[in-house]
Amino acid sequence: MSHRKMKLAVNLRGAGGSMSEWRHPDTQADASVNFELYKQWAQKAEAALLDVIFIADGLYITEQSMPHFLNRFEPISLLSALAAVTSNIGLVGTLSSTYSEPFTVARQFATLDKISGGRAGWNVVTSGLLDEAANNYNGKSIEHDAKYKMATEYLEVTKGLWDSWEDDAFVRDKQTGVFFDPAKLHTLNHKGDYFSVKGPLNIDRSPQGQPVIFQAGLSETGRNFAAQVADAIYAIPQTVEEGVAFREDLRRRAVSFGRSADDILVFPNISPVVGKTAEEAEQKYQSIASLVTIEHALKYTSRFFNHHDLMQYPLDEPALNLIDLIPDQQGTFKNFTADLLSGKTLRQLALEATTPRSPFMGTAEQVADTMQQWFEAGAADGFMLVQFGPFGLDDFLDGVVPILQERGLFRTEYESSTLRGNLGLKFPENRYVKKA
Amino acid sequence: MSHRKMKLAVNLRGAGGSMSEWRHPDTQADASVNFELYKQWAQKAEAALLDVIFIADGLYITEQSMPHFLNRFEPISLLSALAAVTSNIGLVGTLSSTYSEPFTVARQFATLDKISGGRAGWNVVTSGLLDEAANNYNGKSIEHDAKYKMATEYLEVTKGLWDSWEDDAFVRDKQTGVFFDPAKLHTLNHKGDYFSVKGPLNIDRSPQGQPVIFQAGLSETGRNFAAQVADAIYAIPQTVEEGVAFREDLRRRAVSFGRSADDILVFPNISPVVGKTAEEAEQKYQSIASLVTIEHALKYTSRFFNHHDLMQYPLDEPALNLIDLIPDQQGTFKNFTADLLSGKTLRQLALEATTPRSPFMGTAEQVADTMQQWFEAGAADGFMLVQFGPFGLDDFLDGVVPILQERGLFRTEYESSTLRGNLGLKFPENRYVKKA
Repeated sequence: MSHRKMKLAVNLRGAGGSMSEWRHPDTQADASVNFELYKQWAQKAEAALLDVIFIADGLYITEQSMPHFLNRFEPISLLSALAAVTSNIGLVGTLSSTYSEPFTVARQFATLDKISGGRAGWNVVTSGLLDEAANNYNGKSIEHDAKYKMATEYLEVTKGLWDSWEDDAFVRDKQTGVFFDPAKLHTLNHKGDYFSVKGPLNIDRSPQGQPVIFQAGLSETGRNFAAQVADAIYAIPQTVEEGVAFREDLRRRAVSFGRSADDILVFPNISPVVGKTAEEAEQKYQSIASLVTIEHALKYTSRFFNHHDLMQYPLDEPALNLIDLIPDQQGTFKNFTADLLSGKTLRQLALEATTPRSPFMGTAEQVADTMQQWFEAGAADGFMLVQFGPFGLDDFLDGVVPILQERGLFRTEYESSTLRGNLGLKFPENRYVKKA
Repeated sequence: MSHRKMKLAVNLRGAGGSMSEWRHPDTQADASVNFELYKQWAQKAEAALLDVIFIADGLYITEQSMPHFLNRFEPISLLSALAAVTSNIGLVGTLSSTYSEPFTVARQFATLDKISGGRAGWNVVTSGLLDEAANNYNGKSIEHDAKYKMATEYLEVTKGLWDSWEDDAFVRDKQTGVFFDPAKLHTLNHKGDYFSVKGPLNIDRSPQGQPVIFQAGLSETGRNFAAQVADAIYAIPQTVEEGVAFREDLRRRAVSFGRSADDILVFPNISPVVGKTAEEAEQKYQSIASLVTIEHALKYTSRFFNHHDLMQYPLDEPALNLIDLIPDQQGTFKNFTADLLSGKTLRQLALEATTPRSPFMGTAEQVADTMQQWFEAGAADGFMLVQFGPFGLDDFLDGVVPILQERGLFRTEYESSTLRGNLGLKFPENRYVKKA
């Protein structure tokens, strides 16, 4: 039995992560904007002792966007509402560091942290797409590396603001009339390349000291950013070997920035598909995959090919010639190049792009085995479950979690009242506190 | 008996609106960051059938700020959490149109509106102070009239984004696979002087069509802005005559912008102090006012005198000479000038600035009488109660509201499930819907 325990987060994505999951008979088609449903999911995940519910986000849509992208809740407002109806699970939301004000964002996450009693986390994204720039202030896109410089400075500012007040700054002594100790109030006076923020913040230090930072950088610059500022990173390795290499790389980078390797947790994204038998799991996968028409799949996939019209190409022969249409070799784009080089057809590419097939498929035992293997091999500190199908969350919580608990791989009660505590992350001392 | 009913909003301000209210034995000194207390207040106001809970805001603090300003919740996060634990009362929050992104803010209020089932309102402020600029992106102050030009364009953008989807755009037909009707999706393509926002918004039209807009402009430019874009305005008249003049002026301006006079509701701010007798009310006022030291009062008041040190002046003689230190003649500043011209001493000015005396003081009957007088004279469509003391909200809800109900001046049940419905405001048709 292992003493190290895995962490479990769940990425809730309403009507689903594919073009047509909403058409499944058991899917609530309005799930992405159905607060009662999010509340049920959050409470169920909490009853199963999960660490985190995670809300992804995006800042643009087109007519071709997935149903869940077209119409969904903004993360800060959604998570704040969920904070009022849950009591233990972590609440992690995506927010752009390129198109927002650090003073306001620092306040929103501090408020979420206080309202939830120490359960807030921020998934920092840099919003690099032209379509996102078109919806925001300057309407101009920012170059990839500059975005990360901006994000690094942004985190310096928010982390600085979160230290404005020492933990015990508010005295509130009715007899003497002393509300706070001015020696424990600190003004940031930040003047940098991108931001000018004086401070102090108008909310006290929150229960976690600083909300937990999530990140998902894959590029060289993105990984360095994560290694510098993040407490947790989610990743999309395709194999256990890729997972081990990625985690080792991140841990090494964290050390090179003066941190401990254990200061950063790696969560591979997985979309478990669980059946009573392996065949039932495959049927469940097909019940979702088969809902997508090839027209929808091609339209969706065209975003990775510079919005080129893919309908004009043959569907069932190797499509190597499409490689030249891929605009970039970062992140997801790289996987498309690899798939084309391996001889996949356009039909395969498009259908798998809209309904990716998970290596975490089979019986609950089999899925638990694969998770254990990845965990013990060092590919993961925990996993980010990406809801697959209307059955995905229930199947995992009811079927897989108890097995992980029996094997001593997952908690049987919350260790702490805060997200940071449950994740086993250090409480960050206020930078201004003098060491004794 | 009047057929017209008054509307009632309450401005919740945690540890209070004066320097020392937190020292009162019955005040919870951490009230401004105590979510359980906000929840109790919201639920109590809802049980009394109030229209709105209102959360004010500010984007900077100094060591001299009031306790409630030093340490408080950010409004969007607080109201989203309250949405999950209330079901009828309106949720109106302050957010700056100068230091935020319209795409994100439109989403946050649309999310709040959906989560709450149609109860969201946005109090638009333009954040004109230098101290606020110092905490935000550009670090530069924006000139008074330019701020309002920017805010006007900002509202054009958010109102446009809220019409991205027609009310019935989402078809969600599982048989045909049609998720939405593309003819009912509209792209804003806004390019203006301050903002460039393409759209469409990634959330559907919310239950109110558009969240309710509150505003508080007092200057010429501010009033025109409110008359153009706001559904409700709160004001600070000192007398019923001032109230009538202000409301008439706003209604006239609304008509000049092509709206109906009844499209805009005027809510004077009042801070009722209610006792079993008039003497008990006066004692309650004194129990708060007497907690302030003259040093605190002078420090607080100096903000209206260019942060000049007021300790050096005599306290108990007419202080006409201080007029030259008042930097501006807008809003609150104008009241200080009037007070000095009327012969007030520095001590009077400072103590009244920190604990303003309300004309709505006395027994519940007397307070109801004054409210009725203002309402029937045409000084008000409703009132914005500004919590005074730890007893202020309870005294008003338990004592004054039942009298207003008996007189037929206030509702005995909610008329609608939405804030807009309860306020008697029209449902805004989507701009893209073709009239039959």
